[in-house]
Amino acid sequence: MSQKRQLRLGAIIQGASGNMSAWRHPDAVADASINIRFCQQLAQKAELGKFDFLFVADGLFITEKSIPHFLNRFEPITLLSALSLVTQKIGLVATLSTSYSEPFTVARQFASLDHLSGGRGGWNVVTSPLEGSAKNFSRDKHPEHDERYRIASEYVSVVKGLWDSWEEDAFVRNKASGQFFDAEKLHTLNHHGKYFSVQGPLNVGRSPQGRPIVFQAGASEQGKAFAAEAADAIYTRQETPELAREFYQDVKRQLLANGRDAEDIRVFQGISVIIGDSLSDAERQYQQTAELVTLPSALDYLGRYFEHYDFSQHDPDAPFPEIGDLGQNSFRSTTDEIKHNAKARGLTLRQAALEAATPRPTFLGTASDVADGLEYWFTSGATDGFIVRGGTPTAFDDFVDQVIPLLQDRGLYRREYEGQTLRENLGLREPENQFAARQRQPEKVTA
Amino acid sequence: MSQKRQLRLGAIIQGASGNMSAWRHPDAVADASINIRFCQQLAQKAELGKFDFLFVADGLFITEKSIPHFLNRFEPITLLSALSLVTQKIGLVATLSTSYSEPFTVARQFASLDHLSGGRGGWNVVTSPLEGSAKNFSRDKHPEHDERYRIASEYVSVVKGLWDSWEEDAFVRNKASGQFFDAEKLHTLNHHGKYFSVQGPLNVGRSPQGRPIVFQAGASEQGKAFAAEAADAIYTRQETPELAREFYQDVKRQLLANGRDAEDIRVFQGISVIIGDSLSDAERQYQQTAELVTLPSALDYLGRYFEHYDFSQHDPDAPFPEIGDLGQNSFRSTTDEIKHNAKARGLTLRQAALEAATPRPTFLGTASDVADGLEYWFTSGATDGFIVRGGTPTAFDDFVDQVIPLLQDRGLYRREYEGQTLRENLGLREPENQFAARQRQPEKVTA
Ligand SMILES: Cc1cc2nc3c(=O)[nH]c(=O)nc-3n(C[C@H](O)[C@H](O)[C@H](O)COP(=O)(O)O)c2cc1C
Ligand SMILES: Cc1cc2nc3c(=O)[nH]c(=O)nc-3n(C[C@H](O)[C@H](O)[C@H](O)COP(=O)(O)O)c2cc1C
Repeated sequence: MSQKRQLRLGAIIQGASGNMSAWRHPDAVADASINIRFCQQLAQKAELGKFDFLFVADGLFITEKSIPHFLNRFEPITLLSALSLVTQKIGLVATLSTSYSEPFTVARQFASLDHLSGGRGGWNVVTSPLEGSAKNFSRDKHPEHDERYRIASEYVSVVKGLWDSWEEDAFVRNKASGQFFDAEKLHTLNHHGKYFSVQGPLNVGRSPQGRPIVFQAGASEQGKAFAAEAADAIYTRQETPELAREFYQDVKRQLLANGRDAEDIRVFQGISVIIGDSLSDAERQYQQTAELVTLPSALDYLGRYFEHYDFSQHDPDAPFPEIGDLGQNSFRSTTDEIKHNAKARGLTLRQAALEAATPRPTFLGTASDVADGLEYWFTSGATDGFIVRGGTPTAFDDFVDQVIPLLQDRGLYRREYEGQTLRENLGLREPENQFAARQRQPEKVTA
Repeated sequence: MSQKRQLRLGAIIQGASGNMSAWRHPDAVADASINIRFCQQLAQKAELGKFDFLFVADGLFITEKSIPHFLNRFEPITLLSALSLVTQKIGLVATLSTSYSEPFTVARQFASLDHLSGGRGGWNVVTSPLEGSAKNFSRDKHPEHDERYRIASEYVSVVKGLWDSWEEDAFVRNKASGQFFDAEKLHTLNHHGKYFSVQGPLNVGRSPQGRPIVFQAGASEQGKAFAAEAADAIYTRQETPELAREFYQDVKRQLLANGRDAEDIRVFQGISVIIGDSLSDAERQYQQTAELVTLPSALDYLGRYFEHYDFSQHDPDAPFPEIGDLGQNSFRSTTDEIKHNAKARGLTLRQAALEAATPRPTFLGTASDVADGLEYWFTSGATDGFIVRGGTPTAFDDFVDQVIPLLQDRGLYRREYEGQTLRENLGLREPENQFAARQRQPEKVTA
């Protein structure tokens, strides 16, 4: 009996869920972003729903105009480490920027998370869109967009090299002989590159899943190229199944061009969901949540993508203003999309701001409507899975209770975890240790 | 009824406990340093014993000659974050170096740990003794000893400034009005110093205990001066109660000289313990554990303090060799002590190496012998408490089962935690928010 290709799911932990003002919702836990009980409940609900992983985004710069749940939130590595001992099977994917951190420390923290969780760690590699980040890290300037990706590329190769410091069976721990490890299975990286010099070895043994899973989020050409080179999974957002399919095929094409296998990467579409008893009930839930966002908040929200540009200086009911290249060096793919969309559809500033701040979930309706939508995207080759965020504070629970069983009944989604590690559940193969591989095939050694 | 001054205790989590070769002991969990079940059991045992805190040391550079439990171990912040959800009251103190990290990230991770644990976080500030650390962090050279302390001093003041970004009641979260926070209670640091430029604010709210507890470990003059300036607690190791009393008084004197209160700092002596049914049983346990260490391992152990100097080139039975100033830029206080001791007592290299690698616990004997020793040090003014490490793989459990009840019976030690936070349990007062304090007393503003 051959099994259908299986859909995979991640769950976002980010504030009260919904939009920037969802904390105001009557059903919301207003301090969700810094409430560990809330996060623990969400994690356990997601595990009940057999989600592949929890996903925590991150940022390194706030101003008083930032989104409320960005002002006061857990740091991702600490949050997911905490959740590692109160969950059993679900993956733990933390966002961490390569622009303002040290590869040795990041390699250690993710390796440590991986050991804590028995092989469930993942790293969402980002490059920090916000220019202000430089000011929190003693830097003169924020590296420009393409350079951030060049840094990221070298950075991730260093981290992977450190993760290969010890072969899987390096630690012998023979009490009688006193041999703790096999020195042949210890490898010192000795990296000297353009941006980093890192000797190694790492003081953490090989990860239970070979190495933590590497996600990439960033949809520009540079972002996609970087993913095709270095990532095991991609977090992206496309508006339509057609655009998603195009993105998907492009990534797979680049993967093959890089000498990798089409099956070496999993693409996840970031989506938000609202489930109602009827379409109009779902619509009502959406409206109720959307109405919590005021115009000034929405303008602040929009401004954050454009280097904290102050949109309140413009007439909200005039066409979306001409603001030039602002944002090219931060959220490039997102700002391109917002400007393109406003122009193409002739939106006013008010409309553009409210659309950005209160996006209408693509998957909104009854449980079976939502399941239909997911099935269509998935089976038509638009994606390998979804990273799900509730479109209201209660929508995630509704999704687990009502949509997951439908996906299971349709044979699209697991009833039990297949494996113990995130890698096993994602169906990704275990990477070879690069040093061991070179030793086995000395003729293939490259400098 | 006035209560006696209360003794305070921390518990070290570090490998199998005992010495560098304790993993070979028949009772040892050989992979303890990377075994989360082991760490969780130790943490829960310590909490049963009403310990104030768990303490995890750290290091940033290994070679194949490093101590086995340093080769493959959890990173402290991730480990203690994980333990935060499977413990209730015990403090969680992680070691992190100011020489190879970013204040913004470190401030965030500790603030996050503090929120995860409901106010139980602590930071053991170290400056990284090992010169090789530079090679893992893209640096040309390891900053020299005194400069490391100058960096640490600025670093910790930046972190404390970031921890004061939000006043305690800054987050209003008024669902009806839509006010999430009170902008008057948000403070932007704008630090521009010699080593760091950090704008802020931090994206984590004020810690449940005001701010995480700052420990300092480092016993040189610079180390003590830094502690007197910035620390809430000190981790130190002195050989005798007389030396400990001298250290204690010196710290308190410097504290007063810095305008702080004598009660503003807690001094902890790092000790190891072995408990036997009789003194000779304890002695036997010590010998059994000491014999696990071979001479070559002991020479490697010694070498690590002296910039990985190769002591095996010397005759082990000749007097301790003359090696000049090696180690002055790393573990200064420790290397001074080793050399001074070898000279004063005319030790051979073998003796010095084995003494260093298999130190005889100061507190070794029956439970009541050990309780007597602790009581004497404590009541004679040598220390405020102890950071306890088992001298064999089973000694920590014995300590909790047998010594703790005696200390409780003598009225020296709590039967229940006094408070919910580490700060409350240590009896330290909550720090004022520096910005709020300045606003209240504008005449005291200093540039
Ligand atoms: C779906 C998605 C999610 C992202 N999540 C984060 C995040 O959590 N933190 C962050 O600093 N950047 C995040 N980014 C930003 C990217 O890492 C990158 O810095 C920025 O988008 C510019 O890259 P791009 O032009 O390739 O999209 C995200 C980007 C996308 C497209
Ligand atoms: C009791 C004690 C414990 C220490 N623990 C650590 C540690 O866990 N990690 C570390 O990098 N350094 C540790 N150190 C080293 C100090 O932070 C410092 O780098 C070094 O000792 C030099 O400072 P000193 O000469 O003032 O002792 C410790 C030092 C002492 C005295």
